[in-house]
Amino acid sequence: MSKLMQLVCIQLAKQLSYYCNESFKFARLISTSVVVKKTIPGFGTKRQTFSIRGEIMDPAVEELLTPYRQSVKEQGDLVRKLKDEKAPDIDLQRAVAELKKRKHALTDKEFELSPKDNFDRAKMEDLLKQKFFYDQSFAIYGGINGLYDFGPMGCAVKANLLQAWRNFFVLEENLLEVDTAVLTPETVLKASGHVERFQDYMVKDLKNGECFRADHLIENTFEKMLSDKKVTEDIKAEIRSILPTVDNMSKDEMGETLKKFSIKSPVTGNDISDPLEFNLMFSTAIGPTGTVKGYLRPETAQGIFVNFKRLLEFNGGKLPFGGAQIGAAFRNEISPRSGLIRVREFAMAEIEYFMDPKEKETFYKFENVRDLKVTLLSACKQMEGKAPDVKSLGDAVKDGTIANESLAYFMGRIYMFLMKVGIDNNKFRFRQHLANEMAHYACDCWDAEMKTSYGWIECVGCADRSCYDLLCHQKATGMKLVAERKLAEPKMIQVVECKVNKGVIGKVFKKDAKVVTDYLTTLESEGADALDRSLQENGEAEITVKDQKYTLKKDMITVSRFEKKLHVEEFNPSVIEPSFGIGRVMYSLFEHNFKIRKGDEQ
Amino acid sequence: MSKLMQLVCIQLAKQLSYYCNESFKFARLISTSVVVKKTIPGFGTKRQTFSIRGEIMDPAVEELLTPYRQSVKEQGDLVRKLKDEKAPDIDLQRAVAELKKRKHALTDKEFELSPKDNFDRAKMEDLLKQKFFYDQSFAIYGGINGLYDFGPMGCAVKANLLQAWRNFFVLEENLLEVDTAVLTPETVLKASGHVERFQDYMVKDLKNGECFRADHLIENTFEKMLSDKKVTEDIKAEIRSILPTVDNMSKDEMGETLKKFSIKSPVTGNDISDPLEFNLMFSTAIGPTGTVKGYLRPETAQGIFVNFKRLLEFNGGKLPFGGAQIGAAFRNEISPRSGLIRVREFAMAEIEYFMDPKEKETFYKFENVRDLKVTLLSACKQMEGKAPDVKSLGDAVKDGTIANESLAYFMGRIYMFLMKVGIDNNKFRFRQHLANEMAHYACDCWDAEMKTSYGWIECVGCADRSCYDLLCHQKATGMKLVAERKLAEPKMIQVVECKVNKGVIGKVFKKDAKVVTDYLTTLESEGADALDRSLQENGEAEITVKDQKYTLKKDMITVSRFEKKLHVEEFNPSVIEPSFGIGRVMYSLFEHNFKIRKGDEQ
Repeated sequence: MSKLMQLVCIQLAKQLSYYCNESFKFARLISTSVVVKKTIPGFGTKRQTFSIRGEIMDPAVEELLTPYRQSVKEQGDLVRKLKDEKAPDIDLQRAVAELKKRKHALTDKEFELSPKDNFDRAKMEDLLKQKFFYDQSFAIYGGINGLYDFGPMGCAVKANLLQAWRNFFVLEENLLEVDTAVLTPETVLKASGHVERFQDYMVKDLKNGECFRADHLIENTFEKMLSDKKVTEDIKAEIRSILPTVDNMSKDEMGETLKKFSIKSPVTGNDISDPLEFNLMFSTAIGPTGTVKGYLRPETAQGIFVNFKRLLEFNGGKLPFGGAQIGAAFRNEISPRSGLIRVREFAMAEIEYFMDPKEKETFYKFENVRDLKVTLLSACKQMEGKAPDVKSLGDAVKDGTIANESLAYFMGRIYMFLMKVGIDNNKFRFRQHLANEMAHYACDCWDAEMKTSYGWIECVGCADRSCYDLLCHQKATGMKLVAERKLAEPKMIQVVECKVNKGVIGKVFKKDAKVVTDYLTTLESEGADALDRSLQENGEAEITVKDQKYTLKKDMITVSRFEKKLHVEEFNPSVIEPSFGIGRVMYSLFEHNFKIRKGDEQ
Repeated sequence: MSKLMQLVCIQLAKQLSYYCNESFKFARLISTSVVVKKTIPGFGTKRQTFSIRGEIMDPAVEELLTPYRQSVKEQGDLVRKLKDEKAPDIDLQRAVAELKKRKHALTDKEFELSPKDNFDRAKMEDLLKQKFFYDQSFAIYGGINGLYDFGPMGCAVKANLLQAWRNFFVLEENLLEVDTAVLTPETVLKASGHVERFQDYMVKDLKNGECFRADHLIENTFEKMLSDKKVTEDIKAEIRSILPTVDNMSKDEMGETLKKFSIKSPVTGNDISDPLEFNLMFSTAIGPTGTVKGYLRPETAQGIFVNFKRLLEFNGGKLPFGGAQIGAAFRNEISPRSGLIRVREFAMAEIEYFMDPKEKETFYKFENVRDLKVTLLSACKQMEGKAPDVKSLGDAVKDGTIANESLAYFMGRIYMFLMKVGIDNNKFRFRQHLANEMAHYACDCWDAEMKTSYGWIECVGCADRSCYDLLCHQKATGMKLVAERKLAEPKMIQVVECKVNKGVIGKVFKKDAKVVTDYLTTLESEGADALDRSLQENGEAEITVKDQKYTLKKDMITVSRFEKKLHVEEFNPSVIEPSFGIGRVMYSLFEHNFKIRKGDEQ
């Protein structure tokens, strides 16, 4: 590429990133030997029959796939039968694992048979590095795995993409954007479940300390053994029966398997440790004492949840409304790989849309997306080994494929956005999570997946988190994270209230008097009633506040009971969460728009 | 504020942040009871005589200040005399400390005498919290000091401000923007000097572990003792003589002072520890082994320096050019305070402008700012206790106040930007760092300071970092971080080159052969010459590569000597760094544009 062209490219990149936010034809910038690919208008257009990838189906290919589909379907039926019969857990687990294995085989075959577009990843990555779209961080120091720096071109694309996101979501959906702290105290992430559950199992080389993901190590070793002529047929048969269960193994089961097959470090051949839990969050200490443990946030979502009360107030106490955040998140992957796909530091753009759970079924703007046709690979279709459907979001809600209009609305918006910025509709699908792959907070989840040379990758999640997070933080802080809904008819309720005898409480509990008083005066009717009964029956009652036990006597409180007319009732809002991995969307954009012009000099 | 107005405000905030990037009249958004303050056009306009704060001078006030100015001047003269005479360090230090003290007294008096604008910080902060511009992070969990969340309004202002910055600097100056990793391995920050020098001294309460900054603790205790009637005059006299030296005390001197005056924890009265070095960076471990120590970056600058080679290449090998980065940085302050001013996590926008050090004197776009009049408080004026000058940047370069056109150009651009976004020109000044307050990397530095209710605060630094950082990273990595300049006339040089006898080296050093070969083939003439001499004289020579020693014999290399004609020479570029603290600029904007309309209901 000539100097002149290079300058033209830079200029173009700048203009595109800062001036024309309407469309994303950044492919032009990649190189002179890149042909611009037309951005697909995307939605509402007439469509032909689509195969599992949304590509036009070839009957010959479909015939080759039939036995694979059949094999998945049989196993899917078995799993369902076992579930219906409430069969023992171990049988069900084994059946699910086998189902997974058959699904993998089907996916692999599909990938093998799908039309090749002669995409050359090495050439694209060379170009992206050469033009400094992105490259490994700290390369002059040898580089750090899983960390990438964006150069001027990548930076322009990223800024452009985020600006488009802001316009499309924050502005058009009237979302309340926040920009919250990356450093997060442990208490918050304990409450959200991340300290306990956001982890992988790993083993360590006992001599040099090198780490491996335990499940990957077992699977890779097994696959090597299966193709090893020295391994007896008996052992191979055993391996074949265990292999599909590795994904669902407990820590102890993995440990036993590692021992049984004498698995060593694949690099050095040294002995390895038992599996260890490894939390994927980066930890640090906040403040000089070292006693306030903190983590770098693993998602931007929690920053929105902990601000729920302020945002609700900002919105005049009314639902529905959405919070949004664009920002960095951090995950200490055990073995980062696949370029921008699995990294340790990445940009996210997340929305938490808060609604009355009773009003999820319909969504006031659903008309805008009702006729949008998208490729949907539901959990059912996956269990049956079938190809995905292409259908309108309206039909998908009607026939129960998508649970409700609210979830479907945001899926529609996600799809429209991705098409707008230049994702290839033929390499796009929504895939529903199976029950056993759902994150700990989700009750339903669809992933927007893009087909790349790495296979289908999850770029955007659209999860129904119900009221999981708000309940967690409410429980941990004792702060009500609720909204109010008007009752159709006012309701009479029985109220039980504690009045505190401050003199006695102060004398007995001294410096803890305030804690106890606060607890008692904010006690709900149910708790106050139970307390009163215990006092009447036993003459005393025990309460626990902030892990401290206190014994109350009758003379410390006066309990009053009365009727109250309620016009509203409180509830914990339900949450729909569209969550964008910006780096992954960018990478897919690069792949979907990279073309080498034939006959050009290389 | 009515619901309707609130909605109007939100809508306005959104429109302003996403649509009209031309001007920043966001003050309108703060409240209905806020009067919009006209944005000051700022530069090139006729000016009257200005006082130290850029306010119109009152002769009566100036008279009151005269004795303070005189006292500073006398001490300044003494310091200069001691420097000229090369007086003992301890005397010089004491004199500088006394100078500082007198300067403080002058500043305080000036502040006391400056016109009050009836600004009510509590009212403004209430409003900012109520309308959720920003608030303490994790407040429902009790909050964490030094961490703040921006709500929808603050977020809009921030996005707007950053967009304006991108347009004004990245686009108009044709900068190469990067977006680099926050997680930074220790080796990089060791090289840059941050691991060793980016620290404060603290002491710990020996019973409860609470931490205090050692210098603040001593100063506060001394000030309390000076106003304590029970303390004898003798001790007070001693304290008065020590107080001005606290700033410059070594760790041991602080320890001795703490012991001598039996200083205890001001909160509990418990004994305290000796002073400890406390590094202000947050540390963490990168990857699962825990062996790769990393920090959260304390500035975005290093991400630009480590990418210098790629950026230079991107720019076709030509100087000058600037790298830019907008992003988060982290500093683990011992005791964060003053709202958004001193926080633990903050947004920065930094430029590193790389130039040939021989071409710093003139700058090709200096004409654009030559006639711009700005308020300059030079180091000299500070030493002499004088008021700052208001003069054109052209004059300031001509009379030597500002070292060169390059530094002055960026000061001009900083000024223009701040005026454009709504900083009050009457509350703005550039203050030059004194030699003893310069950061470890800077050789000259001017701060853009804004006057707020917290006093004058540094919002933007404009430092000449010379080639400090590139040299550091070059030394640590062995990678040449240089640019080339054409020689006026080609130059003949003597080249000494090593050719490696691969067979022998491979046999002797086995797996280390590559390391040794790489070292020898990239050896510069000087090193090759010394190596050759040692081999000729002693028959062998020792080299050290990556902390490992190797002994070379004559038969391992062949040395050739020849003449070479050079048309270019290499050099380490010099760097001018404008560095914006975005949170501080935002806070100043809030204060400078907050007005309460008289007679409005509160």
